[in-house]
Amino acid sequence: MKVGFIGLGAMGSAMASNLIAAGHAVSVWNRSPAACEPLGSLGARIASTPQRAAQGEVLCSMLANDQAVREVILQSGLLDAMDRGTVHVNHATISVALAQELTVEHARRGLDYVAAPVFGRPDMAAAATLNILAAGKPAALEKVRPLLQAMGSRVWPMGGAPERASVVKIAGNFMLAAAIESMAEATVLTRAYGISAADFLEVMTSTLFASPAYQGYGKLIAEQRFKPAGFTVALGFKDVGLAQAAGEAAQVPLPFASVLRDNFLEALAGGEEDLDWSALAKVAARRARLDERDVPEDSARA
Amino acid sequence: MKVGFIGLGAMGSAMASNLIAAGHAVSVWNRSPAACEPLGSLGARIASTPQRAAQGEVLCSMLANDQAVREVILQSGLLDAMDRGTVHVNHATISVALAQELTVEHARRGLDYVAAPVFGRPDMAAAATLNILAAGKPAALEKVRPLLQAMGSRVWPMGGAPERASVVKIAGNFMLAAAIESMAEATVLTRAYGISAADFLEVMTSTLFASPAYQGYGKLIAEQRFKPAGFTVALGFKDVGLAQAAGEAAQVPLPFASVLRDNFLEALAGGEEDLDWSALAKVAARRARLDERDVPEDSARA
Amino acid sequence: MKVGFIGLGAMGSAMASNLIAAGHAVSVWNRSPAACEPLGSLGARIASTPQRAAQGEVLCSMLANDQAVREVILQSGLLDAMDRGTVHVNHATISVALAQELTVEHARRGLDYVAAPVFGRPDMAAAATLNILAAGKPAALEKVRPLLQAMGSRVWPMGGAPERASVVKIAGNFMLAAAIESMAEATVLTRAYGISAADFLEVMTSTLFASPAYQGYGKLIAEQRFKPAGFTVALGFKDVGLAQAAGEAAQVPLPFASVLRDNFLEALAGGEEDLDWSALAKVAARRARLDERDVPEDSARA
Amino acid sequence: MKVGFIGLGAMGSAMASNLIAAGHAVSVWNRSPAACEPLGSLGARIASTPQRAAQGEVLCSMLANDQAVREVILQSGLLDAMDRGTVHVNHATISVALAQELTVEHARRGLDYVAAPVFGRPDMAAAATLNILAAGKPAALEKVRPLLQAMGSRVWPMGGAPERASVVKIAGNFMLAAAIESMAEATVLTRAYGISAADFLEVMTSTLFASPAYQGYGKLIAEQRFKPAGFTVALGFKDVGLAQAAGEAAQVPLPFASVLRDNFLEALAGGEEDLDWSALAKVAARRARLDERDVPEDSARA
Repeated sequence: MKVGFIGLGAMGSAMASNLIAAGHAVSVWNRSPAACEPLGSLGARIASTPQRAAQGEVLCSMLANDQAVREVILQSGLLDAMDRGTVHVNHATISVALAQELTVEHARRGLDYVAAPVFGRPDMAAAATLNILAAGKPAALEKVRPLLQAMGSRVWPMGGAPERASVVKIAGNFMLAAAIESMAEATVLTRAYGISAADFLEVMTSTLFASPAYQGYGKLIAEQRFKPAGFTVALGFKDVGLAQAAGEAAQVPLPFASVLRDNFLEALAGGEEDLDWSALAKVAARRARLDERDVPEDSARA
Repeated sequence: MKVGFIGLGAMGSAMASNLIAAGHAVSVWNRSPAACEPLGSLGARIASTPQRAAQGEVLCSMLANDQAVREVILQSGLLDAMDRGTVHVNHATISVALAQELTVEHARRGLDYVAAPVFGRPDMAAAATLNILAAGKPAALEKVRPLLQAMGSRVWPMGGAPERASVVKIAGNFMLAAAIESMAEATVLTRAYGISAADFLEVMTSTLFASPAYQGYGKLIAEQRFKPAGFTVALGFKDVGLAQAAGEAAQVPLPFASVLRDNFLEALAGGEEDLDWSALAKVAARRARLDERDVPEDSARA
Repeated sequence: MKVGFIGLGAMGSAMASNLIAAGHAVSVWNRSPAACEPLGSLGARIASTPQRAAQGEVLCSMLANDQAVREVILQSGLLDAMDRGTVHVNHATISVALAQELTVEHARRGLDYVAAPVFGRPDMAAAATLNILAAGKPAALEKVRPLLQAMGSRVWPMGGAPERASVVKIAGNFMLAAAIESMAEATVLTRAYGISAADFLEVMTSTLFASPAYQGYGKLIAEQRFKPAGFTVALGFKDVGLAQAAGEAAQVPLPFASVLRDNFLEALAGGEEDLDWSALAKVAARRARLDERDVPEDSARA
Repeated sequence: MKVGFIGLGAMGSAMASNLIAAGHAVSVWNRSPAACEPLGSLGARIASTPQRAAQGEVLCSMLANDQAVREVILQSGLLDAMDRGTVHVNHATISVALAQELTVEHARRGLDYVAAPVFGRPDMAAAATLNILAAGKPAALEKVRPLLQAMGSRVWPMGGAPERASVVKIAGNFMLAAAIESMAEATVLTRAYGISAADFLEVMTSTLFASPAYQGYGKLIAEQRFKPAGFTVALGFKDVGLAQAAGEAAQVPLPFASVLRDNFLEALAGGEEDLDWSALAKVAARRARLDERDVPEDSARA
């Protein structure tokens, strides 16, 4: 299929290369053009403008956030330059409000809009093992299914309204943040009684919480390894904000999200915006002044 | 080994029967004697008093809560009736403060105290697949290890101070409650946008949260099936209280626990004490008046 | 002085009429022109456009919220039509971000911007007993002081940066919301023990909390009289949002504001947007199912 | 009247001296006897035991907390030594549960129990300007009224069940803590925009919040003067716990109390137990790292 791909960060580059590997004719564009070259050497055509990248049957985009989507997709005139019937697949995690606005703006121009946010980090994108949510009109979903299958291990159809995939992604990220905070608080409690975070989390993530989310972030918390960040405190704060905004629009109170917001904000006030969002564990420990304590670690654990 | 077992609820009965099956000579006692009979027919000796049950090398107990432990173990004179050197293995989830008090009271009498709270429900107790935390003096742990292995699939040594196993169990239950609340809030948010709890939770518990805790409680939330309770709202409230009390004693703020406390209390005010603690999902839905809404479910999901 | 006045709701009309009464030459404009007539009969000139109202030395505006200020002041071209040196006094409660943007937009055109939000309800505006916060360049403040003094009983200079008056107003409204929530929770607690809200609040608001805020809202809570609203739940929610946004921009966690947000949102979900914001007391009572209880009121109180 | 007085801390001593000044025959007892002497020199009889102090018609007690009341009143055999018909007036702030237990224990022995907790600090106790809540049987209240009037400027009858006065006192202290937290958060927000706490709080406590509670604690927060404590962080934490316990017994969620609990706990973790409870302002400032910032104070305020 003739496909454009816009937004070649770590995630987008890996996803686009899987499209190339699957035999699609891919045109790429990125704001800073250097990111295009590796894909060019894999066989992608390098487009000089987003408009040119969007000449195929399908345009995929993986941009950073609402603002980037707004600038590159909405304010650039890109949609006006696209042929009627083209499908735009937006992989970014964006607000429900913007998903709704994009749905309208595409429909007005005879374009199809598919929201296809993903769960997974760059290594999973590279391995084509992403979980991809997908919502949009059935015909559009059908058309892009081969592309999604080339980029992920599983595609989760979420219905006809694109905003549905967006809110599922947002709710999922909220659940991740809550899982982190839950481990953060629990390990501060057990550390105060002399049990190391590693010992405590080994029990929990081998048993009741033996899942990728808990194991991955549990490891970072156990090792207090918040650099380099897989997903930053700043992004975590932003995504909790997306959950709160979606909750506000639908009049849904989310008390855990409120706690998360304040804790992320405390991390931001501490200059920790670039740490991994599992640094919520630092906030919890600091609040209890845990690092200033003389807690007897019990060597009899083994 | 000659073992006593006190407290024959659903958990205790299953655990004691596994001790019998493993060939140990088990004496059982229960406050209401009817519960002894099935074990008697499996070969247990039925003791007429707790003191008689405690004549072996090891006494196991699985009582309901702090109050039951206090009455049966501390206030009954039981400890005074036990031979020096006997090991008492307490499987109940109790407060850190009581674990500390029990440690002192046993030591004063030359008895050994092992805290061995378990993760698992009655079906796992029956299948001997519990995860058993164990803390106490190394020699005592060594002695009771065969018993623990007969009752669980894995024993997690947590060190020399019995309170350590208690606080790990408490912190684990707090993490379970937080996981439930996180799903509760996330599903209310997504339901408000027309996505069924079943659809949303299928995605999450098949991917990032593919763990027993999320899958088990996720199923109850998806089906809104809060009866019969595996673990009640009342017990959930009690256990969050244990986490808060442990936090208070160690000066550890636990903001998620505070939210959980208020939400459980709201369920209690609603007369829902006997529902499964996953009924936190009802509290979240009621707060958003979700059941009074006309939310368009999207049939295009499949 | 020759003064324009834009925005003639209950507050604005009362304030403008006090300027007329003080002898100023006042030009008025309002989106729906009917509101101009009573002021016309008091001697105001009725302007056909905001631009015409803004021909004097000073333009006062009292618009509803950020959106109204944005439309009427920023997007209408009004600022471009004003003479250099004119002072614009904005009485609305707006976001810190908009205050900062307005400061820049006025300065770019050689206009002076004074933020002068007020504490007080329409009856206080009519009696010219408002408390007026005022921030802006010293010369501009000096120039408009006679106007402010004609509208309020006291003017509180807050410094040179207009945003300073805005954030003080926002923080003050946050304190009001917190005072309401505090009374809401405390009265639910005491009502659960049989003490009427009126009895409890009489004690508190006659002694430690003998202040206008507590006495005014305490009365509404004691009488459960949430209609007609002096200030609605919807506005309360909006203003807590302004506090949170100001906190976000300055990286200040505000945990009480987070609780308030969720409680207002619960009221909104319950369709209570038009009730007085003291209806937080309804939310607290509903959460405890207080109205479904049979609480013995104690007649021995007198 | 012949009156005993037990518990001669700063509050109790001042209250007892006002009883002496009013002409009553006062017998005093205190755990550490040195505190009796100043009252002896005012004319009090110094009792060698609590029992001897309790020989009059009325026994007043002003003990520190539940534990002290439990030890001195319940576990000492004091009640058994008192004559039937004696009225015990308990001025301490105690839990609702203990108030209920005391009511039963007094009634069993033919004694009358009046709960009479007070609002006010030692200087108000000395000036006999306390606000005194009073609950108990009408005849008992009638009998002790002259005593209460000698100690306070106003007596607030709260009904027949003593626990009613206790819960009102607890709810009142909760409102005080909430007022402090509200000022703490609001001042951190405004300080982040360059407005000093003194400037901000002057506006608020001269207008909407012109009440003793806000003015008193506002002054401490403005001056960051948390030593010496009028009422400590440790006591504030305890009293919020009393509100939560009363809420738990009556199934009333109190979300503001939950925030307060965690914030006091954070102060305790920081070793600030002996600071005035208005040190919640320090917790809020630390969370925002306010003291590490370079905030431009605006000298144009005056």
